Amino acid sequence: MKIAVDAMGGDYAPESIVLGVLEAIREFKPNFDILLVGDETRLADILAVNGAANEPRIKIIHASQVVGMDESPGISLKKKRNSSIAVSASLAKDGEADAIVSAGNTGAVVAATKLRLRFLRGVIRPAIATPIPSRKGVSVLLDAGANVDSKPYNLLQFAGMGSVYSKYIFGKENPTVAVLSIGEEESKGNELSKETFKLLKKSPLHFIGNIEGRDVFSGKADVIIADGFVGNIVLKALEGTHSTFKDLLKSEIQRNILSKIAGLLLYPALKSISKKADYEEYGGAPLLGVDGICIICHGSSSPKAIKNAVKVAHKLGEYKVNQHIEEIMEQLEAIKPALCAVE
Amino acid sequence: MKIAVDAMGGDYAPESIVLGVLEAIREFKPNFDILLVGDETRLADILAVNGAANEPRIKIIHASQVVGMDESPGISLKKKRNSSIAVSASLAKDGEADAIVSAGNTGAVVAATKLRLRFLRGVIRPAIATPIPSRKGVSVLLDAGANVDSKPYNLLQFAGMGSVYSKYIFGKENPTVAVLSIGEEESKGNELSKETFKLLKKSPLHFIGNIEGRDVFSGKADVIIADGFVGNIVLKALEGTHSTFKDLLKSEIQRNILSKIAGLLLYPALKSISKKADYEEYGGAPLLGVDGICIICHGSSSPKAIKNAVKVAHKLGEYKVNQHIEEIMEQLEAIKPALCAVE
Repeated sequence: MKIAVDAMGGDYAPESIVLGVLEAIREFKPNFDILLVGDETRLADILAVNGAANEPRIKIIHASQVVGMDESPGISLKKKRNSSIAVSASLAKDGEADAIVSAGNTGAVVAATKLRLRFLRGVIRPAIATPIPSRKGVSVLLDAGANVDSKPYNLLQFAGMGSVYSKYIFGKENPTVAVLSIGEEESKGNELSKETFKLLKKSPLHFIGNIEGRDVFSGKADVIIADGFVGNIVLKALEGTHSTFKDLLKSEIQRNILSKIAGLLLYPALKSISKKADYEEYGGAPLLGVDGICIICHGSSSPKAIKNAVKVAHKLGEYKVNQHIEEIMEQLEAIKPALCAVE
Repeated sequence: MKIAVDAMGGDYAPESIVLGVLEAIREFKPNFDILLVGDETRLADILAVNGAANEPRIKIIHASQVVGMDESPGISLKKKRNSSIAVSASLAKDGEADAIVSAGNTGAVVAATKLRLRFLRGVIRPAIATPIPSRKGVSVLLDAGANVDSKPYNLLQFAGMGSVYSKYIFGKENPTVAVLSIGEEESKGNELSKETFKLLKKSPLHFIGNIEGRDVFSGKADVIIADGFVGNIVLKALEGTHSTFKDLLKSEIQRNILSKIAGLLLYPALKSISKKADYEEYGGAPLLGVDGICIICHGSSSPKAIKNAVKVAHKLGEYKVNQHIEEIMEQLEAIKPALCAVE
């Protein structure tokens, strides 16, 4: 398996990315090769500095441009045809890479991947599936923002893809699926969520109903379904809370000598909580539904996050997740006439 | 001013509610009277136990039924015409109360109030305006769930109502308004948010563009506009995180003797953070747009939260917030033809 890693994307690129790749190779003794995409000279330097100039599992693929984290995806794709994101996607398109891993501009990664790769058989829209640490392990929320203004049948497909992902990557035997809404009853929600509820109820998936915002972290459902607009806002709000809280705690601890001592004593506990709430432990979020593997990492990914993302990319291939997605799409498609008649 | 307080609504009712009312009366030396709505005998007992049997500012209004926190609002309103929520709303309708305060079933409070009170001149849909503690003071998010499937002009009106509330209750001179979306550029968002952006841009409000989920807590905007579906999910997700975090921290602190000592030393700091993140400090969220005052409190409201809610109800009256809302509705209405021509 060949994994193209966008070495220029992310707040700490390229160093953090290269270090992550090296950690992955050393830790997993893998049967995969890495195509490191980016500025040839810089990447060769970083490899050399880290004693990996001749690492046989890594091949550098030159890309002369970089898409900025805040650039408009559409414009950047048109103007920067030789960006590390565009080159990575092209490698996947041409069959030279089986997977892409990027911590770059999410919108650009999604756009480039959707543009260059075909969709899996039956998939109408791909979706970003973000792992969420919960009290009971890991839940998956999708769509985390690959689409806006989705339709009920799109959300049904997201549920199918999310169930496959939850089963093969997080080991949930019969993953529970819920719709994110404003009340648990079937009658609660907006038009989209209520129609999606109806479809899921009749589907072969393990649907358990609606959950509310407060249950996103509770582990009540293994797969949480939302429109990409809602999913993206909720995930970013949680991220914002996490960092606000960290800042507040830091400044409270600095307040006086007693609080500083307490901070030191409590350091392991705080570290452990922070780790539980840390998305990066799960190595990024796959864009499910494309005929290939695409892992989108957080912009501020550490080497560890990149290492885990490479691992997830490999696992998605190993467990043939895409094949299972096509199977579930066929099942959902087969009952489509019955589903629509119900409404 | 007469304030009807639903004494039976909320997880700790009626004790917590009555104590909150007593605190309000003692603390504010008010020029308001309280109509305490609920079970006559129980309420008289609680007042007596607290040495307030003859408090001249409190009058008990009997209501024989209670709407459960998980009951369906529609059904409960039909079946329990003598519930403390229904009676409170009727008092407002008949002009016997100028304001309602309730920590009961939010859906039922909203439904009863919308059913019994008229809307302010020009208002198409009322909205729940929830105060959010931020790094820069208090922001307001609306709609927090009074509506689903709103239209752009509804959201424009929410922005107008929120601006008035932010100005008169939180003292922001020229409150900034932002749309909650998935990117800062005008082109980012779903159909509803993009159309709302266009309307706000042409409005007399102090519109600063889109903000993302991570900025809900940052204080970037004084007034944050969202559809009630999105607003409700985000607020509940934040609440869920808050309580998950508290639980995690508690169990980490219990782990061993060192962490217990640290927990003690850090107690004031943790308390102070918790207070900053505590919605109850702000005394509930008004349902803006109805011809009256309705404050919706959290189900788990403490006496302090109820006290603050009574204070906010009084302040909304004192500062003639409803009159200012009608003025801004008129301004928005006047430019409506121009706004729609832009689209």
